[in-house]
Amino acid sequence: MAQVSSKVKFGILGCARIGRTVARAITLAPNSDLYAVASRSIEKAKNYAVTNGFPSTSKVYGSYEELLDDTDIDAVYVPLPTSLHLEWAVKVAEKKKHLLLEKPVALSAEEFDVIVKACEDNGVQFMDGTFWMHHPRTLKMREFLDDSEKFGEMRHVHSIYTFPGNDTFLKNNIRVKPDLDALGALGDVGWYCVRSILWVANYELPKTVTALRGPIFNDSGVILACGASLQWEDGKVATFQASFLANLTMDLTALGSKGTLNIRDFVIPFQETSSSFTASNTSFEELVTGLVQAPSEHVVPTDLPQEAQMVKEFSSLAIRIKESGSKPETKWPSISRKTQWVLDAVKASIDKGFETVEI
Amino acid sequence: MAQVSSKVKFGILGCARIGRTVARAITLAPNSDLYAVASRSIEKAKNYAVTNGFPSTSKVYGSYEELLDDTDIDAVYVPLPTSLHLEWAVKVAEKKKHLLLEKPVALSAEEFDVIVKACEDNGVQFMDGTFWMHHPRTLKMREFLDDSEKFGEMRHVHSIYTFPGNDTFLKNNIRVKPDLDALGALGDVGWYCVRSILWVANYELPKTVTALRGPIFNDSGVILACGASLQWEDGKVATFQASFLANLTMDLTALGSKGTLNIRDFVIPFQETSSSFTASNTSFEELVTGLVQAPSEHVVPTDLPQEAQMVKEFSSLAIRIKESGSKPETKWPSISRKTQWVLDAVKASIDKGFETVEI
Repeated sequence: MAQVSSKVKFGILGCARIGRTVARAITLAPNSDLYAVASRSIEKAKNYAVTNGFPSTSKVYGSYEELLDDTDIDAVYVPLPTSLHLEWAVKVAEKKKHLLLEKPVALSAEEFDVIVKACEDNGVQFMDGTFWMHHPRTLKMREFLDDSEKFGEMRHVHSIYTFPGNDTFLKNNIRVKPDLDALGALGDVGWYCVRSILWVANYELPKTVTALRGPIFNDSGVILACGASLQWEDGKVATFQASFLANLTMDLTALGSKGTLNIRDFVIPFQETSSSFTASNTSFEELVTGLVQAPSEHVVPTDLPQEAQMVKEFSSLAIRIKESGSKPETKWPSISRKTQWVLDAVKASIDKGFETVEI
Repeated sequence: MAQVSSKVKFGILGCARIGRTVARAITLAPNSDLYAVASRSIEKAKNYAVTNGFPSTSKVYGSYEELLDDTDIDAVYVPLPTSLHLEWAVKVAEKKKHLLLEKPVALSAEEFDVIVKACEDNGVQFMDGTFWMHHPRTLKMREFLDDSEKFGEMRHVHSIYTFPGNDTFLKNNIRVKPDLDALGALGDVGWYCVRSILWVANYELPKTVTALRGPIFNDSGVILACGASLQWEDGKVATFQASFLANLTMDLTALGSKGTLNIRDFVIPFQETSSSFTASNTSFEELVTGLVQAPSEHVVPTDLPQEAQMVKEFSSLAIRIKESGSKPETKWPSISRKTQWVLDAVKASIDKGFETVEI
């Protein structure tokens, strides 16, 4: 009985493709139940439930409102287009349901603050859908970055997330539509780049952000490819490239005064059950003698895919709130906000002709 | 007899540490002879010859002029501080000796043009000392980059060359002295970054160069760490980070529309006899199905270390000129000049407060 009550019942708003991955994750997470899905078309929702492994007992709704009115639902996953986040994320919070929101969390940090306030006012947990944050590999890499002997002080980070959109994607996908995901590649793949840089920097915000010249836009003015540099007062510098027009690349390289971290698949591991990163650590004396070791590879297994680790962590927080009356964990909205701030600054820098923007 | 005459006799100006590597390379290259070394101190030159495997028949000179007056010498390797390049490189050429010149080739492209003109006027071969260009791995990577199906069109490049100077290096090394190597980390490690970017771009010069904010200088105003972005008119964008203040990192990542190339040791391979790169190639359909393959590793063996491959190629050109009366190969001074142009532009952008500079 206690065990049943400690599972979080999830509803999903909309039938987005990314929702399939999270639906499976909810099924895999030991503390979470796939409970309901809503679409503006009941037929679409039914079909989605059937093809995505929803249990036969699950609910299917023909409108988002109906799902939110279901008082059995504890948490809602929102993979709607970004332009709909403000409206629906706030409604989820007002219905006292915990909110798992896809990235980018909003069209601007200003919008996002409204969402966060609604979550705070209603005592519900907020988390964005950045899967890789929850992979056990991420914790292992953190240990390396936090080691003052192995990594030292952060100097540079370069992050790349690009994939090759085909003609259909570049014409029809919501991520290239100004009325749906107006931030384009910056909000989509760029989100991961910015988050990874902030993660390496232990979420210390840069002082300034400068967009790189040469972003590429579609005919509607949506960003298809862009980059930026981020500067901190102590000399740390980071750069990133985000694009829908280049081969799949998910590289994160972090340079410290004493060590280097490199990962080739930081967004989505090449393998689900095991993934790796490389780390190196070289003294000046080794350079002089020429006896430099190749970076060492560190393999990290995981019993659950990273998106299921995410759902598990999110649900743990929701259960803690329910069972002990504790406050929601503020770390998650805080790092979402910082990520969105930097995205906003990159956008502002592009709009101002690549001027440097203070954060 | 024919074989003996087809070996190029090398003289080395100065006793620089890097000269030890090239002295060994001259010994290893089948068409080259280590013949003489000069220092402003004859004792230093003698000691250098003994400790660096010069044959007992080799000549030792107490001044650079004497070495240049030795009419048996065919080619001179110049690893002097950059501020001395203009004077001594021109003298080498005027003595009708082929010129292998350490990087950066000059303090500015203007200076370098004087050196190139001296080489042209005297019919001698010019080459700079960028070892990695001559590694068989570089040819293999070129094949991948030139493959329109595997790599497609170049989109982005990021190049990193950094190493951690210790206190003694940062205080006393010629590379941090304004009167010796005034370009500091930009001219030293930055040279490799810029060359690697131009190499990926098939030496198409960028239209504009913008230094990244946040370079680090020493008390004398010499650059210890810097970066820049390079932009081409067709949307290609490249970035680099060069530093004496971060852990050894030698990463080159090139993104095409269809493929990605990555190499972790592009400047100096971790192993001398065999080295590798990774290449990947992903379709949008693979992304949708989630069946993305990890990049494949390509191992390239080499019978000679890259610096000996360089000497061998340089000597082959010298021999061809001698035996067939052909003109010097213009490719090598041409790519040196382009590299220096970009360095000059980065420097100008830094000096102008990170303004974008046209090339």
